[in-house]
Amino acid sequence: MNYPNGITKNNIVKQAINYKNRGMNLEDDLNITNNYYIDKKKAYIYKKPTPIKLVKVNYQKGRIDEAYFEKPSTTDYNGLYNGYYIDFEAKETTNVKGFPLINIHKHQIEHINNMYLNKGICFLLIRFTKLNKTYLLMAKDFMDFINNNKQSLIPLTYIEEKGYLIKDKFAPRVDYLEIIDQIIERN
Amino acid sequence: MNYPNGITKNNIVKQAINYKNRGMNLEDDLNITNNYYIDKKKAYIYKKPTPIKLVKVNYQKGRIDEAYFEKPSTTDYNGLYNGYYIDFEAKETTNVKGFPLINIHKHQIEHINNMYLNKGICFLLIRFTKLNKTYLLMAKDFMDFINNNKQSLIPLTYIEEKGYLIKDKFAPRVDYLEIIDQIIERN
Repeated sequence: MNYPNGITKNNIVKQAINYKNRGMNLEDDLNITNNYYIDKKKAYIYKKPTPIKLVKVNYQKGRIDEAYFEKPSTTDYNGLYNGYYIDFEAKETTNVKGFPLINIHKHQIEHINNMYLNKGICFLLIRFTKLNKTYLLMAKDFMDFINNNKQSLIPLTYIEEKGYLIKDKFAPRVDYLEIIDQIIERN
Repeated sequence: MNYPNGITKNNIVKQAINYKNRGMNLEDDLNITNNYYIDKKKAYIYKKPTPIKLVKVNYQKGRIDEAYFEKPSTTDYNGLYNGYYIDFEAKETTNVKGFPLINIHKHQIEHINNMYLNKGICFLLIRFTKLNKTYLLMAKDFMDFINNNKQSLIPLTYIEEKGYLIKDKFAPRVDYLEIIDQIIERN
């Protein structure tokens, strides 16, 4: 099978699986955070299911017997926060020098750009697992980098300068809306 | 398997399948409409994939060997229109007297209510296939009915009075944003 730029069979499969028996990763933290927001009636932001191409279905048993993962054409998360449209992609990297762009494929970059131009609140959440730090980088700053650089990695220094470090908390775990509040207030 | 209120094995399965070889239904029309909006850079509204519970995956081949459909906890469509958060559910009915509420399950009603309270633009698109008419009914009017009636069917007369008939067009086929423009302008 041919996968588009930046997507491999393994990372599609991994994205689609529940990490039930692993330590907390960014996806787990975001599930907990988003459920916290929903419980508090603060925001309704959901992870989109990975798209699946069905090949064989047993209707009698409601069971899928053969199917394939498809590449998502949008970001993983979107939803509603107090009338605002929220849209983001969440990625972890073990790299300590920056965020390798191979993690985001072409259609997702296009989508992020469209969200920004159509006045959505769009951003990336990037966790540097070895540094134990999670940053929020707004779509505008992400696109500025892409449009003005040929590098395949966004340096950590750029993310530190343009992005926002998300404080560790107990609840909600990854309180990205705290940052979004600041950004909304400033505009 | 037990399915929640209003959802049956068959309608979950049917929702998830591509109707490639069938006549145009509401879902097809909406795919074409949403692609039209995207092409014109007017709005970015997508159908969410049906959630799937994975049981057996062949990693080597990137293939799912056993999986089950899960009930969606939200509406089927959401996205961004000129800074506005758009969220809707699309349903067809062969009933000519009204819209049977069994078509919308409890979690979806809760979601629709949350979208409305959180200032999203949320609605139902209801196609009466035998009447060949498609209506847009705003979440507020939908919730008003649910909260003030014990009936299991929203009468066509209520939908005609509170809803908006969507004109047939060639492109875009189901121009629901034309109605949303009118509603935004009025508020």
